[in-house]
Amino acid sequence: MSEKQKIVLAYSGGLDTSVILKWFIEQGHDVVAFMADVGQKEDFAAAKEKALKLGASNVYIADLKKEFVTDYIYPAYSANAMYEGRYLLGTSLARPLIARAQIEVAEKEGAGFVSHGATGKGNDQVRFELSYYALKPDIKVLAPWKMPEFVAQFKGRQDMLDYADTHQIPVTASRAKPYSEDDNLLHISHEAGVLEDPAKVCEESVYSRTVAPEAAPDQPETIALTFHHGMPVKVVNLDDQSEETDPLALFAYLNTLGAKHGIGRLDMVENRFVGIKSRGVYETPGGTILFHALRDLEGIAMDREVMRLRDMLATKISELIYNGFWFSPEMDFLMKAVKQSQEYIDGTVTVKLYKGVAYPIARTSPTSLYDEDLASMDIEGGYNQIDADGFIKINAVRLKAHSAILQTLRKKYHDEKTESQA
Amino acid sequence: MSEKQKIVLAYSGGLDTSVILKWFIEQGHDVVAFMADVGQKEDFAAAKEKALKLGASNVYIADLKKEFVTDYIYPAYSANAMYEGRYLLGTSLARPLIARAQIEVAEKEGAGFVSHGATGKGNDQVRFELSYYALKPDIKVLAPWKMPEFVAQFKGRQDMLDYADTHQIPVTASRAKPYSEDDNLLHISHEAGVLEDPAKVCEESVYSRTVAPEAAPDQPETIALTFHHGMPVKVVNLDDQSEETDPLALFAYLNTLGAKHGIGRLDMVENRFVGIKSRGVYETPGGTILFHALRDLEGIAMDREVMRLRDMLATKISELIYNGFWFSPEMDFLMKAVKQSQEYIDGTVTVKLYKGVAYPIARTSPTSLYDEDLASMDIEGGYNQIDADGFIKINAVRLKAHSAILQTLRKKYHDEKTESQA
Amino acid sequence: MSEKQKIVLAYSGGLDTSVILKWFIEQGHDVVAFMADVGQKEDFAAAKEKALKLGASNVYIADLKKEFVTDYIYPAYSANAMYEGRYLLGTSLARPLIARAQIEVAEKEGAGFVSHGATGKGNDQVRFELSYYALKPDIKVLAPWKMPEFVAQFKGRQDMLDYADTHQIPVTASRAKPYSEDDNLLHISHEAGVLEDPAKVCEESVYSRTVAPEAAPDQPETIALTFHHGMPVKVVNLDDQSEETDPLALFAYLNTLGAKHGIGRLDMVENRFVGIKSRGVYETPGGTILFHALRDLEGIAMDREVMRLRDMLATKISELIYNGFWFSPEMDFLMKAVKQSQEYIDGTVTVKLYKGVAYPIARTSPTSLYDEDLASMDIEGGYNQIDADGFIKINAVRLKAHSAILQTLRKKYHDEKTESQA
Amino acid sequence: MSEKQKIVLAYSGGLDTSVILKWFIEQGHDVVAFMADVGQKEDFAAAKEKALKLGASNVYIADLKKEFVTDYIYPAYSANAMYEGRYLLGTSLARPLIARAQIEVAEKEGAGFVSHGATGKGNDQVRFELSYYALKPDIKVLAPWKMPEFVAQFKGRQDMLDYADTHQIPVTASRAKPYSEDDNLLHISHEAGVLEDPAKVCEESVYSRTVAPEAAPDQPETIALTFHHGMPVKVVNLDDQSEETDPLALFAYLNTLGAKHGIGRLDMVENRFVGIKSRGVYETPGGTILFHALRDLEGIAMDREVMRLRDMLATKISELIYNGFWFSPEMDFLMKAVKQSQEYIDGTVTVKLYKGVAYPIARTSPTSLYDEDLASMDIEGGYNQIDADGFIKINAVRLKAHSAILQTLRKKYHDEKTESQA
Repeated sequence: MSEKQKIVLAYSGGLDTSVILKWFIEQGHDVVAFMADVGQKEDFAAAKEKALKLGASNVYIADLKKEFVTDYIYPAYSANAMYEGRYLLGTSLARPLIARAQIEVAEKEGAGFVSHGATGKGNDQVRFELSYYALKPDIKVLAPWKMPEFVAQFKGRQDMLDYADTHQIPVTASRAKPYSEDDNLLHISHEAGVLEDPAKVCEESVYSRTVAPEAAPDQPETIALTFHHGMPVKVVNLDDQSEETDPLALFAYLNTLGAKHGIGRLDMVENRFVGIKSRGVYETPGGTILFHALRDLEGIAMDREVMRLRDMLATKISELIYNGFWFSPEMDFLMKAVKQSQEYIDGTVTVKLYKGVAYPIARTSPTSLYDEDLASMDIEGGYNQIDADGFIKINAVRLKAHSAILQTLRKKYHDEKTESQA
Repeated sequence: MSEKQKIVLAYSGGLDTSVILKWFIEQGHDVVAFMADVGQKEDFAAAKEKALKLGASNVYIADLKKEFVTDYIYPAYSANAMYEGRYLLGTSLARPLIARAQIEVAEKEGAGFVSHGATGKGNDQVRFELSYYALKPDIKVLAPWKMPEFVAQFKGRQDMLDYADTHQIPVTASRAKPYSEDDNLLHISHEAGVLEDPAKVCEESVYSRTVAPEAAPDQPETIALTFHHGMPVKVVNLDDQSEETDPLALFAYLNTLGAKHGIGRLDMVENRFVGIKSRGVYETPGGTILFHALRDLEGIAMDREVMRLRDMLATKISELIYNGFWFSPEMDFLMKAVKQSQEYIDGTVTVKLYKGVAYPIARTSPTSLYDEDLASMDIEGGYNQIDADGFIKINAVRLKAHSAILQTLRKKYHDEKTESQA
Repeated sequence: MSEKQKIVLAYSGGLDTSVILKWFIEQGHDVVAFMADVGQKEDFAAAKEKALKLGASNVYIADLKKEFVTDYIYPAYSANAMYEGRYLLGTSLARPLIARAQIEVAEKEGAGFVSHGATGKGNDQVRFELSYYALKPDIKVLAPWKMPEFVAQFKGRQDMLDYADTHQIPVTASRAKPYSEDDNLLHISHEAGVLEDPAKVCEESVYSRTVAPEAAPDQPETIALTFHHGMPVKVVNLDDQSEETDPLALFAYLNTLGAKHGIGRLDMVENRFVGIKSRGVYETPGGTILFHALRDLEGIAMDREVMRLRDMLATKISELIYNGFWFSPEMDFLMKAVKQSQEYIDGTVTVKLYKGVAYPIARTSPTSLYDEDLASMDIEGGYNQIDADGFIKINAVRLKAHSAILQTLRKKYHDEKTESQA
Repeated sequence: MSEKQKIVLAYSGGLDTSVILKWFIEQGHDVVAFMADVGQKEDFAAAKEKALKLGASNVYIADLKKEFVTDYIYPAYSANAMYEGRYLLGTSLARPLIARAQIEVAEKEGAGFVSHGATGKGNDQVRFELSYYALKPDIKVLAPWKMPEFVAQFKGRQDMLDYADTHQIPVTASRAKPYSEDDNLLHISHEAGVLEDPAKVCEESVYSRTVAPEAAPDQPETIALTFHHGMPVKVVNLDDQSEETDPLALFAYLNTLGAKHGIGRLDMVENRFVGIKSRGVYETPGGTILFHALRDLEGIAMDREVMRLRDMLATKISELIYNGFWFSPEMDFLMKAVKQSQEYIDGTVTVKLYKGVAYPIARTSPTSLYDEDLASMDIEGGYNQIDADGFIKINAVRLKAHSAILQTLRKKYHDEKTESQA
């Protein structure tokens, strides 16, 4: 990398990527700053100004919020994707989207290089880089935290601060939390630093998006969430009749409600793709409501065997999303099936929100496979109870054969033993 | 069945099985009443007396509570078995145990027949009968609700009441709930009747084991649950230091705590093995705490790939348990792997109980695979961040190849199109 | 069934379905005979005449051969469907097609009933009936071998022959093989009767579609089979340059070649859906060539992870096809993914045919993911070998953690033991 | 690595590892040569002498043949492990065994380093290194082909030859095949070089362990292979009554027979763990016979649902073995289930060997689940055909519900369309 290169850097406005931006320029490169707006709290205008001041040749700010909701969050949730049974993939889902928009900028700018500020121990480096490579196989990636010359120069936070001082990079001390965070429309995560010890309870002050369940309203609130083909299309607050149908506004409203009722907090030790276990604290208010409501609707509208297969695949899908394989042939493969599974998932779920929980309490569906007459034990419908006799007897055929063999073997073993003792 | 047979009947003391008991006797058979104590609320002495009065030749009451906890609940939960992502299998797990003890009585009594009062539309008939056949392939099963002569005689509840009246079978009107229930140590279920309509919210009065989250204490309570090989071995209430280590007492204490804090309520539409969807309302207080605590401990002590595979199999295991295949070669097959997965699941999880939720908030483990130094982003440990570069590049090799092919094909298609338009 | 009904009967022209046809008419019903031409050896004209003579009110002969190849065989093989690792599903794939066409006739004729001559112990009854119910939920099925009144009348083959004699049903003794057969374009199966004992070697005389490998030509023959989207589109005989591209002609030619070279014989014990094991002897000449050729092409053109997932699902797909769930929401679900997996499976496989085996020996593909430079150990390409170092080290991270825990536990156990002995 | 280190090198006696041995010594290290005898054709005495002459401080030759057969080949085959549906894992299974013995030597010698001569593009580097790290987490690995200083010095084969010349390393030109090979008891593989082009047919001269099917005897030979718990315990040649029971002798005899009859040849493009596709030509004579015989026995002795689950896991197991995860918690997890699946796999399979194929033609088993009476269509046994009616009807319940919904939706869509056109 001795000659001048054009680099599109995923820029956040924070200390790390500001140092990286400056450092690349110092090395003689042309740096384009790229900022993705996926709903995080950020002063984009100030960050843009800062980047330009530091010498960025251009700054792009891409508003990806709507795309995030419709093309990433909704499809992933329609797959019931939940990592290791608990994590709702807030960061994992945003990374490929950011990478996609960043590659678009690289192509527009004719840049041969992209860069990001993620470390070499986390998942984000993988999610960014696999997405870059999948979308533009000839792209070159510069990840300073894995470049020996950068790592040698910046051994700790103090080196960064000193460098910032030397190069007049403004440092906003406000962000000096003793742990790291990532936030977007879907969630905020907190990890590392003081949160590293999994035996230490996470302090209430860490949580920033949701109120504590203890501080949530003492009165439940009830909503009706309507889906079409497994995608949310309307939310109505049954208490005040307020309503949202626009995907982005709908999801933002779920976030507001979830945050108010302390819904979507999670504290877990998870497995990173790089083989390390790490402790994460998450807040996913709207996503948690969405996840449970859809699952509930599927109960009434999805075929049993489709659900079985989808549930098996959901484990794999969540792993692929978490590991950074959003853009991959195997995701394309799996999502075709998932989409088919959602074709008849229409209907409305009533959800009670109270003190940390979204309780589905009622559901209706025009595509319901539930038949009250069949389920009933009192009413005689198209279902003939006597058929169940044959059903069970045929299901028992192989169990009986297996059991008979076991008894024969046990008897044989016993006889041999008795004989040898005689 | 023209000649006199000896029948071991799973007897509950209620109207249905009392009528069945009498009916079999009227048909000239010798009926042995079998009652399983799996922790349900029942006056066993009164029921025994009733059975004898009705003409049972013998009455057995088997205390299966401890076996239920140690040999059914704990192993199933160590497999993370949860049906259709939500139901904790309270009834499903008790049925094979009851069947096992009933078959034992049949063998002791030299009875060629067993019977039960489950209908032909539910899951319980399958769970009972598959267990009977698996344990004793030559057993004959009499399920009155699938016997044409019985069904012809008892077309509705009134026929049962009339029969009871005629035969002096005492009817306890107290149980006249407009829905049916099944309860045991693990849970109580409510279904059918007024609960059938999934669009109608279940009334608070239906719930009987747990308080409503709204009525639960405003102060959280915190416990430490300790596991060895994935089995709970100690619970300590960190607020009052009370402690339980005996399996049965421990589980009962979890139930007490869960019930107090409104934990473990579930309202869902599920898929029965007989192909019908049905709506169930469940209360599983202690089981819910146990489930989430173990999952949390696995986060720190279970290998990632073992967890992936176990999670895929858990879907299958929960299906097998739900469908009545507890005693089957495929369960033996799967549970060997599950047991191996729990070999190093030791440690203690701190769980906060509050208003309907069991929140794992801290965990320690002597077999922890978590390494604070590795996970840290600040400390340089045995993990070399630069290795991640090669890791990602190698993972990207096939993505690049796939992507390159796609681009070639797209270009070719575009060229052909352009050419054909020329 | 006391009043006159219109029944569409799957009619083969053989003894069983002729007796059934007559028996239904005798019971006062209106019977429409339906014959499906799926490529079996049959004198359809003679069979039609026979049916009319016996009193059928109408006879339909549906030529389903092309649909069988393009809509059943090719899609199933694109899913690599092979039951229990060996059986290529010859009969299983034809049944739903026949049922589909039979239901079409029932709708055209306004018949409320369909019937077939399959027994109550086999798979075909399930495949027929599940297909009927899936395609027309309100259809009524009459399966004489499961109707007590029919079974009571026909206890054995002699009763059938006597009935035929009485009712002047012509019996072609020629078919008096001591085992049963089912044949169609894809295969011929032989089972039951003298073949029942799995310990007895199947005699050469049983095989009728393929020559014995011992009798096959001593000279191999080589073909080039070309696929587009995983579907065969051309076969060229490289020895004589003969060529076929029409789907039906192509498949027929594969059959001719396979038969000539003794390819596709199989003798196995399999598991029926009804829980019984049964021994089947199969001949699937063209299908075997097709299966191995496609698998070979996938080696070069299918992404690795897509192949892994598809292979896991193929086990399930073959089970669904075998069990009669061709028309089911879960097949729709799985086949969407399968279709996606075949999107880039284009190319040509050279296959050597010799003495019972189809050996893929060379392959080319315009969508090949194989890169000679990458695979080479001599040439330095885009792949940097040093990256593999990081790849392996990161993959080893969790193995090391697990191993370290094991060693600690072993040591602790040893120390405790030593201590207790001291 | 500036100071003197003790390195245990996996030494083959060939050019590459001889150069590596010398190069390490030149760098000032103490090199112990380790040779594993896994049944490959090798003059171990000559190789030992050569290593000592080149300066090895010690040479170990470990006879691992028996362990290979009993602890690696047999267990893997009991799992039906076959990579990508075809490859019988000949090289993959030997690598972890070699690594295990090499680590044992490293511990005995107190060496902190191990080394091997595998390149950075293949699978073997991964298999060796993951095994090293899993068995001894603190081991250091030196892989010269991934060491920049080594790669810089040896850019091609000529550099190796020149180095050999300079350092008097004897070069056996005999091995100058234009492709690379790996052989052991289980198989010989041929790849790279002239074999790289998958479109070029592999020449007959490449094959070295098996005769061509064309050159195999014109008379079939028949053997009886007996298994206990899924492990082969006896082979009898039914033509000449020769017999082997010792595991190693038995497997060697299967190799002899397979080689004679041209059995076990395979030419495929496979997916390496490092993301590259590669073409491999394999000869696995005895293993192929073993694989097909065991699968056949399972047909009669393994429960259907156990087989389904095992088959799904077999895909994963073969992937793990191929990728180098033999020593891993996930293999331990899976193999517990596999072992359980083989508990009742006892019996004898008769296999006909002829011109490239091992045909199972008959089988008997003391643990057979096959019941001739049940399978028969003529004999009335414990199986009641009428039960199948209920079995199918219950299985159809959800298909009917799904179908009914589809028809309603189609009708609704049609009505809406008609209405909008009106």
